Amino acid sequence: MGKNIQIYDSTLRDGAQAEGISFSVEDKLKIVKALDELGVSYIEAGNPGSNPKDLEFFDRIREFDFKNAKLTAFGSTRRRNIKVEDDANVKSLLLANSPVVAIFGKSWDFHVTDIINTTLEENLNMIKDTIAFFKEKGKEVVFDAEHFFDGYKANPKYAMKSLQTAVEGGADSIVLCDTNGGCMPNEIYDITKEVSTRFQTSVGIHCHNDGGMAVANSIMAVLAGADQVQGTYIGFGERCGNANISTVIGNLQIKKGYSCIKEENLELITSVARKVAEIANVSLDDKEPYVGRAAFTHKGGMHIDGVTKASKSFEHINPEIVGNERRFLMSEVAGRSTILKKIQKVAPDIQKDSPETKLIMERLKQLEHEGYQFEGAESTFELIIRKNLGKYKPFFKLENFKIIGEKPNSNGELSAYAMVKVNVDDKIKMTAAEGDGPVNALDKALRQALEIFYPELKEVYLKDYKVRVLDTKEATAAKVRVLISSTDGIDEWTTVGVSTDIIDASLIALIDSIEVKLLRELEKKIKAYM
Amino acid sequence: MGKNIQIYDSTLRDGAQAEGISFSVEDKLKIVKALDELGVSYIEAGNPGSNPKDLEFFDRIREFDFKNAKLTAFGSTRRRNIKVEDDANVKSLLLANSPVVAIFGKSWDFHVTDIINTTLEENLNMIKDTIAFFKEKGKEVVFDAEHFFDGYKANPKYAMKSLQTAVEGGADSIVLCDTNGGCMPNEIYDITKEVSTRFQTSVGIHCHNDGGMAVANSIMAVLAGADQVQGTYIGFGERCGNANISTVIGNLQIKKGYSCIKEENLELITSVARKVAEIANVSLDDKEPYVGRAAFTHKGGMHIDGVTKASKSFEHINPEIVGNERRFLMSEVAGRSTILKKIQKVAPDIQKDSPETKLIMERLKQLEHEGYQFEGAESTFELIIRKNLGKYKPFFKLENFKIIGEKPNSNGELSAYAMVKVNVDDKIKMTAAEGDGPVNALDKALRQALEIFYPELKEVYLKDYKVRVLDTKEATAAKVRVLISSTDGIDEWTTVGVSTDIIDASLIALIDSIEVKLLRELEKKIKAYM
Repeated sequence: MGKNIQIYDSTLRDGAQAEGISFSVEDKLKIVKALDELGVSYIEAGNPGSNPKDLEFFDRIREFDFKNAKLTAFGSTRRRNIKVEDDANVKSLLLANSPVVAIFGKSWDFHVTDIINTTLEENLNMIKDTIAFFKEKGKEVVFDAEHFFDGYKANPKYAMKSLQTAVEGGADSIVLCDTNGGCMPNEIYDITKEVSTRFQTSVGIHCHNDGGMAVANSIMAVLAGADQVQGTYIGFGERCGNANISTVIGNLQIKKGYSCIKEENLELITSVARKVAEIANVSLDDKEPYVGRAAFTHKGGMHIDGVTKASKSFEHINPEIVGNERRFLMSEVAGRSTILKKIQKVAPDIQKDSPETKLIMERLKQLEHEGYQFEGAESTFELIIRKNLGKYKPFFKLENFKIIGEKPNSNGELSAYAMVKVNVDDKIKMTAAEGDGPVNALDKALRQALEIFYPELKEVYLKDYKVRVLDTKEATAAKVRVLISSTDGIDEWTTVGVSTDIIDASLIALIDSIEVKLLRELEKKIKAYM
Repeated sequence: MGKNIQIYDSTLRDGAQAEGISFSVEDKLKIVKALDELGVSYIEAGNPGSNPKDLEFFDRIREFDFKNAKLTAFGSTRRRNIKVEDDANVKSLLLANSPVVAIFGKSWDFHVTDIINTTLEENLNMIKDTIAFFKEKGKEVVFDAEHFFDGYKANPKYAMKSLQTAVEGGADSIVLCDTNGGCMPNEIYDITKEVSTRFQTSVGIHCHNDGGMAVANSIMAVLAGADQVQGTYIGFGERCGNANISTVIGNLQIKKGYSCIKEENLELITSVARKVAEIANVSLDDKEPYVGRAAFTHKGGMHIDGVTKASKSFEHINPEIVGNERRFLMSEVAGRSTILKKIQKVAPDIQKDSPETKLIMERLKQLEHEGYQFEGAESTFELIIRKNLGKYKPFFKLENFKIIGEKPNSNGELSAYAMVKVNVDDKIKMTAAEGDGPVNALDKALRQALEIFYPELKEVYLKDYKVRVLDTKEATAAKVRVLISSTDGIDEWTTVGVSTDIIDASLIALIDSIEVKLLRELEKKIKAYM
């Protein structure tokens, strides 16, 4: 393994600057968990000074037991002409109580004089005071030199001085930011080389993608001596986004022999990308390097022929290394070994070329074509395997349902009602319920009916409900994918449903989520007898 | 103006290798027209040997009067052990009747011996014979050295020999292909330098994006001496796609001073990207460099403040240069000055400290607290301003509605119906409709009722429908935010609704979207009288 490179992920801070991204505290906790498991070195999780909601996050994350990453809070240097200890942002940053703080400050003279309207000297004091303040409080301090490259091009002496000042203030690392994202790889290389030769301190790189260069620029900076790379996990961020960390890790570790994360975690790169996309409610671009659905997909006949003879003929790496899979668009034989592993959990005897494997593969392909996606919906996946192996007997049948929504109702308001009829071992139960919207009414009515037969369902509640519109061009007639996460306080499981009708999609996921709980209870009972 | 760089667009050939892309002959003719007007140098429009449909295209394009570009047909060298004039692909390529042909051949020894199963010597003969054949026919010949970089790394002598052979055969340019897309920018630079130093012939670069490096690698090749760049206009292609030509032009011409297209055509870059996306039926990524909808969009308060003072503070170029536009997002981090600008569009007299500004600010804060988010829903924002300024009179009132969903219906299936009653100037109209789910049924019923009063609504259709679940912990009782984008074929606008009931949230956004269209029509009528 080569030189260590610190991966610094800012999905939750710089990523949240992207249009359409708005994380709840729950979302943030989930992303922290995924990134920490993957093994990045730093997770920059918020800016408590500019976003008070972030303080709630930093409060709740306190109980989290980090395995790999250091939690980082982000904020500005003190404002001009104020004592550092009196600065409101600095105080908020301290409240975050993180082991690491990232302080950004100006290194482009034009920004100092024309945007924050202060003197070049006071700006240097702002940098030094703020860093020194946090060092005194025992923090590890990362200094983000905002607009460093533009600053260097305009006034190299002052840009270097800002770094020098940060080092004198005690910064543990100095990070060169291409804030406007317009630099070219050769410029980044030359300027980073200059800095890493001059300073003994750890040098980081933070690139934006306005020229489509964020990843390339990050790699060039590492080649020039940087040992920390900042970015966002799947690349979203202000304007054209940030350096895509999943691509950076692939390139540095697989192509260039650097060490970014544990070697055995490389195969998590793809699933983490899909998880982050799902939580952020954005579509992961199919052609995203390493992690996209089409990254190892072959359409041309000659390419399929070549890859069949030797994968290196048209693939830059083996997709299994990053947990992705090869797909042939004409004659699909993809990912069979991955799926086999899941099948063997239910039926250990089944082999790669068993007819059952083929049957399940075909069913999965059909469902995926309909818009299903099983990343993060393993429970639905398990039920599909069971259904196709004949190892499944439904615990109940929803005989029929009816929902009514109207406005105004007798109170002049909007209301939603649901009626359901369920059948458990030929015993019929009918219930009705009112809810916040038709899906909630249906959920309530279904539970009321089933709890009579299965009291253990009383422990179950829904933890998460996500709706993703597929083929958005079809607008209100488009297909939707609904993901439901359920918990009984101990286990958590996720199920998925797809339909052009959101009620139907929700119901599919809801029924599966109840079935999974009942299946687990049955398994426990069987175990107790064995 | 600096050195001329030939832009070689392969959207219609290599782009067609992407998953989900399938061009009709009509589509291809439209894209040729757009690219020719923009002023690229070559349009590689098909592979008549592997795709017989392409011959129809080459037949129909004959009448087209090219202003800038040279039409290029793409095909393989002759097969092994066959005379060039007897080769079926070579004959198809000749039928295309294009002034330029691109011939691809092998330059990686492993591919010669293990994939196409011939001798290293015969492969060189295949290259030479085929190029010489087309030169004799009076064609300009581009030689695409497939897998050149992987070949060079494995056996530099043989890779170089393949180029030498092409030059001896009479090739007008030799193109270095990173077919598997896995090379890093420094490698591309060094190897291209080697080639451009050795040969007098024009050198081209053809990169794929498997490492996220296609654009960077293309730029590095130009810096090393290449004078032709191949790619696809918005980057789609096999697997992770090709070098994105719109980004390449922006970087080379605006950043590096090369001349790729006529200077006055730079402002067409964005509209051509949107046109190509529309014809190819793909969504252009919002964060696409230069041309994406978010490429010059600012969300962070400090960024908005900076750009308002001087655009270069947070923009690498002025968006007008490429025909794109700057946008400021309304978000929890946007300041009063941004909001004031929007208010002044409706009421120019209102100032920063007018009581109306304060009122609107408070209303916005309240709505944001309820889960609204106005970034990308500028139209709802405008309606809120108007409502709060008393500059708004609704065009209709939804008196009441009722939705019913049931399963099984009389056909044993799931169905959704909606009934609505609308009031327009005290005229009442009631309608009912069936749809794919309750929201779609409601949408249809509402339109049916309103089109009687406002026939202009017939032009409007929904382009996009997004659902985001807020506070996912509340699961099916959680609030949802619905975003609806509508278009009348000319303008596009987005509205937003929030509620715990998805029907209600959709309805809020739907009603606003109709109101916006009617407001625009009214404004047009007023303008005609003034």
